[in-house]
Amino acid sequence: MTTRERDILDTKDLTFINNIESMAVIGASKARDFFFLRSHQENFKGEIYAIHPTVKEIPDFDDGTQGKIYPCLKEIPAQIDFVFIAVPPSQILRVMKDCVEKGVKLASIFTAEFSDSGTEEGKALERDLLKVAQNKVRILGPNGMGLFYPKLGIAWRPKFPTTPGNVAFISQSGGICNLAIYMSTQLGLYFSKVFSFGNGADIDFVDILFYLTNDPETDIIMCYLEGIKKNRGKSLRKVLAQNNKPIIMVKGGSSKSGSIAAQTHTAAITGEYRVWKAIFKQHDVIEVESIEQMLNAAKLINFYGLFNLKSVAVFSISGGYGVILVDLLEKHGIGVPPFSPNIQNEIDSKFFTLGTSSKNPIDVSAQIFASQSIYEIMDLALSDENIDGLIIDIPSWYFSQDFHIIKNKSFKRHMINAFTLGKKHHKVLIPIIQRVNCPEDRERINNMLTERKIPVFADPLEFISLLQKISRYTQKVQARK
Amino acid sequence: MTTRERDILDTKDLTFINNIESMAVIGASKARDFFFLRSHQENFKGEIYAIHPTVKEIPDFDDGTQGKIYPCLKEIPAQIDFVFIAVPPSQILRVMKDCVEKGVKLASIFTAEFSDSGTEEGKALERDLLKVAQNKVRILGPNGMGLFYPKLGIAWRPKFPTTPGNVAFISQSGGICNLAIYMSTQLGLYFSKVFSFGNGADIDFVDILFYLTNDPETDIIMCYLEGIKKNRGKSLRKVLAQNNKPIIMVKGGSSKSGSIAAQTHTAAITGEYRVWKAIFKQHDVIEVESIEQMLNAAKLINFYGLFNLKSVAVFSISGGYGVILVDLLEKHGIGVPPFSPNIQNEIDSKFFTLGTSSKNPIDVSAQIFASQSIYEIMDLALSDENIDGLIIDIPSWYFSQDFHIIKNKSFKRHMINAFTLGKKHHKVLIPIIQRVNCPEDRERINNMLTERKIPVFADPLEFISLLQKISRYTQKVQARK
Repeated sequence: MTTRERDILDTKDLTFINNIESMAVIGASKARDFFFLRSHQENFKGEIYAIHPTVKEIPDFDDGTQGKIYPCLKEIPAQIDFVFIAVPPSQILRVMKDCVEKGVKLASIFTAEFSDSGTEEGKALERDLLKVAQNKVRILGPNGMGLFYPKLGIAWRPKFPTTPGNVAFISQSGGICNLAIYMSTQLGLYFSKVFSFGNGADIDFVDILFYLTNDPETDIIMCYLEGIKKNRGKSLRKVLAQNNKPIIMVKGGSSKSGSIAAQTHTAAITGEYRVWKAIFKQHDVIEVESIEQMLNAAKLINFYGLFNLKSVAVFSISGGYGVILVDLLEKHGIGVPPFSPNIQNEIDSKFFTLGTSSKNPIDVSAQIFASQSIYEIMDLALSDENIDGLIIDIPSWYFSQDFHIIKNKSFKRHMINAFTLGKKHHKVLIPIIQRVNCPEDRERINNMLTERKIPVFADPLEFISLLQKISRYTQKVQARK
Repeated sequence: MTTRERDILDTKDLTFINNIESMAVIGASKARDFFFLRSHQENFKGEIYAIHPTVKEIPDFDDGTQGKIYPCLKEIPAQIDFVFIAVPPSQILRVMKDCVEKGVKLASIFTAEFSDSGTEEGKALERDLLKVAQNKVRILGPNGMGLFYPKLGIAWRPKFPTTPGNVAFISQSGGICNLAIYMSTQLGLYFSKVFSFGNGADIDFVDILFYLTNDPETDIIMCYLEGIKKNRGKSLRKVLAQNNKPIIMVKGGSSKSGSIAAQTHTAAITGEYRVWKAIFKQHDVIEVESIEQMLNAAKLINFYGLFNLKSVAVFSISGGYGVILVDLLEKHGIGVPPFSPNIQNEIDSKFFTLGTSSKNPIDVSAQIFASQSIYEIMDLALSDENIDGLIIDIPSWYFSQDFHIIKNKSFKRHMINAFTLGKKHHKVLIPIIQRVNCPEDRERINNMLTERKIPVFADPLEFISLLQKISRYTQKVQARK
């Protein structure tokens, strides 16, 4: 992307972010045990400095001999690419002036009480901040958490995951970022970058979205958006039009009360929801209802790539649960058709237990304990060309030997192998492992499957509506080609 | 209820079930280590016997000296109220003949391959079974798990919960019963009785429903139903018309493919779904989509009684999450209005942290760590007469001291007290504690709250649609009065 092309889109160049080598935390608070400094210190890969007017020593950071604490930015004898600022509003202009003089490229401003306060004073301060920055320092915030970038170890909170990944998240709420980041590991999601852009005074949603749509480290983009400034609508449409990556969106303020709440939250003008709906539809944005759905949709796409599910096989330990799954799938546009006659014959020959049903939905019943046969039946079902995927429910107690009547030491291995059959057939396979009475066994099996990029859920309503949304997106992508 | 009234309804008298004092397991299989005998033996409160043609000793049950194993039922020198039968189909008529002669009141038949097989032979065997029983022995099944009755210790599987409760479940699927029962403890639900009635050859769905609507041990009735026999529709409507308890229903086979699957599963004729929908609507049956929703709806009603939520307060740690909650609530018919002016003034005076919002939805933000103030603010919000309930999101890491910047040893106690404020104000209070990075902390806090009958959820989509369903039910109940 050339500068000229970017100008047409009216977005800022953020590619320099991928090359941050040094940082400083300005306003490291002693009373809070230097929280933001500690958090960034945990994993930052480059040189990190603390700016504090009086403190000369910070335990476990600098005992006064390492030259990592300075009273002001300008005294650091090195280039500083990135600063995290948490000073009171009254000091912000002076600090920003220092940043400009120091040649800082990116400033993340945690400080609140700018336009977010709703006061004229706050709005004026935000305008002054931009004037001082002169477009020389790019600003994330104010009133935001800024940037989480695990590859470089930039992290505003302790114990953030350290493994980099290919999923990005842009959020108009810092708290939601914390939630998404702390939930991600268990889901098997790893981030390229997370942006909490707060008031978006300088770098805004459109800028970040454009950057991520062209970022080689990012494959999937998740968004929590309340609104954008009126004059950015045209640019947003252009950015969406040139995008080729799946965008999963939670639109905050889609209801009347929600819209008012969003205005209190970030002073966002959420706009008419039907206008947003039309934009999302036109540009194939995958809209979901909650943060949990957003993460689950990203997990599904991340583990299986794009998919178009029309017909699936259902395996259930309980005939009734299978019936409910079929009802839910059909309500969400996914069929559970009979197997092809030759496949059906082969499957029939594998069943030897009373109380089972070999037809789709398959009622595995007590034959589950003959786990090798279940592996073979699942393999057959997935080999049917009329079947695009497989959904299986298996409560967690089956993974506890305490509940096996006849001990089958190979059970877990057979089932893990069976659950990877989706990968073999390049089809979607989703195990539902309900949270019941063996939480440790569930945790263990969930982690093993998540490592193998097999998406485990606990409740069909967590994912069934997402299958249709992802399938529709895939259809549109395929139609574009 | 007199016999005459029951005759009008055409339902069987099952009240004798509450007085079962003795039982026998017929067909205790040595190869499966006497599975069903072991399960019942675990907790059965009365005398339990095993029937086996050849076995003389069962370890940890009878070493041959206690007189608890007999080659046939008739040789037991005591009255037998209840039998659990798991013999091959070929022996079923002989065993039933013994039951009649012995004066058994209830027989639960696990054996399958009757009408469920779909064969003429199977159907004929089921008819013969009823003939032999002569309405003297009431039959649960065949092809069902029968009865779980924790108060008497009747349980078909090991490690079933032993605490009796006030929730009943009638299910046309045994596997779903296992799931519901094994999930119940964690949810804080305890059962009066669970019925897996299989083919319903004798005692059917309508009989059990009638019995439970008049059972003093049962307050809430959950159902998984695929279908009933055509000639039972009239009786079902009469039973529903005389019912005064909340019935929570999952109707299996509500889709076209699901209906076919149900027929394979239990030979149930599921009937036109729109007819069912009309019956449910007319008789105020609370219909839900999944077993998980059914259990969650029962949990809400069990913990708070019936409620009619029109307006709630929302407390969120993250402004964005609060906005999403407001959107979801409004979509499901529940408002998040401003507080009354005097309450708003009082709440305002309690806030002292930047980045918070004192308006509904309240953005608690970093003030969460001043937990005593949050208790007071929640108390004020719930005292507002325009507010019927309160929903609060608080991710699990807040309950781990590792994540507190300034250690607040009273945090957990204050928050538990705050969560019980719903009980004080007789209003619904629901904490959402997301499953994130501190599973042990979440488990601990979840158990503490569940003991106090405070319903914890992990994801708003688990319960938000249920609030409206329960509110509508409550409105109808109130209108009837």
